[in-house]
Amino acid sequence: MSREIRAEPLTAEAFAPFGDVLELRDAPDKMINAGLCGRHHDLAALDFGPEGRAGISLFDAQPRSFPYELTLLERHPEGSQAFVPLTEHPFLVIVAPDVEGKPGTPRAFLTTPHQGINFHRGTWHGVLTPLHAPGLFAVVDRIGATPNLEEIFLDPPYIVVP
Amino acid sequence: MSREIRAEPLTAEAFAPFGDVLELRDAPDKMINAGLCGRHHDLAALDFGPEGRAGISLFDAQPRSFPYELTLLERHPEGSQAFVPLTEHPFLVIVAPDVEGKPGTPRAFLTTPHQGINFHRGTWHGVLTPLHAPGLFAVVDRIGATPNLEEIFLDPPYIVVP
Repeated sequence: MSREIRAEPLTAEAFAPFGDVLELRDAPDKMINAGLCGRHHDLAALDFGPEGRAGISLFDAQPRSFPYELTLLERHPEGSQAFVPLTEHPFLVIVAPDVEGKPGTPRAFLTTPHQGINFHRGTWHGVLTPLHAPGLFAVVDRIGATPNLEEIFLDPPYIVVP
Repeated sequence: MSREIRAEPLTAEAFAPFGDVLELRDAPDKMINAGLCGRHHDLAALDFGPEGRAGISLFDAQPRSFPYELTLLERHPEGSQAFVPLTEHPFLVIVAPDVEGKPGTPRAFLTTPHQGINFHRGTWHGVLTPLHAPGLFAVVDRIGATPNLEEIFLDPPYIVVP
């Protein structure tokens, strides 16, 4: 069985089983500020569980490169997690379907500039993988008292290629 | 009385009466992802009131230039509002103290790359003013049934200079 995964372009349709793509729609939902600003409204299914609340954090991640060795998938059972890049560089987004409580075969997506993503609550995903420095992202996720983390190590790893 | 306002550098200390600066701290609160990512944790005082919830929207605003004519201030009585730039370009942030229910003398701040901001609930502020195209921002604010908006037109306007 091949362990090679080819990165696909990130589209809302392809990513829908895993989460939301944060990008401009064809037209804004509303023009505000005397017509000078388009509001593309409420693009992410946020879910922080009954005990959590929303927070904004910044993540500063080391850039990776292709071929990328995928050794770890994780999920947050108690909350969604959104990533907004603070740069215009593409980054790599890795997800996997859930198969009886474990991740199935992963899929990899490559963003275009000005795309962010929101992982739905409980979605298996790879760690943050920028491809360029600085690897800076605003993250909207659950603030709460629990660890809210499940990790699965992959042996042998998958290899993600462009 | 002069109506000219000079833009100041955006610092957490100067901005504290109005909101939060979303920027890396001196050190991350936690290293995650096997040491490859620093988490700068929970940087914004989010408040969406008893009837609201958090949402992520994208704003696509027309770039402005100096001297900038400030004709309008607004506030959201029911929620905080955070702006994260999707580019590395500086943008202009205008705020004003509340003086008996009306905005006092405004202050203007100029960001540096990778800075975002969060206006605290009820803070008087100018509309989104990017200085470069594309004027794209992720916005974390209140999703709810009410208009959540108060506007004050300024006559004569203030003039913001760099």
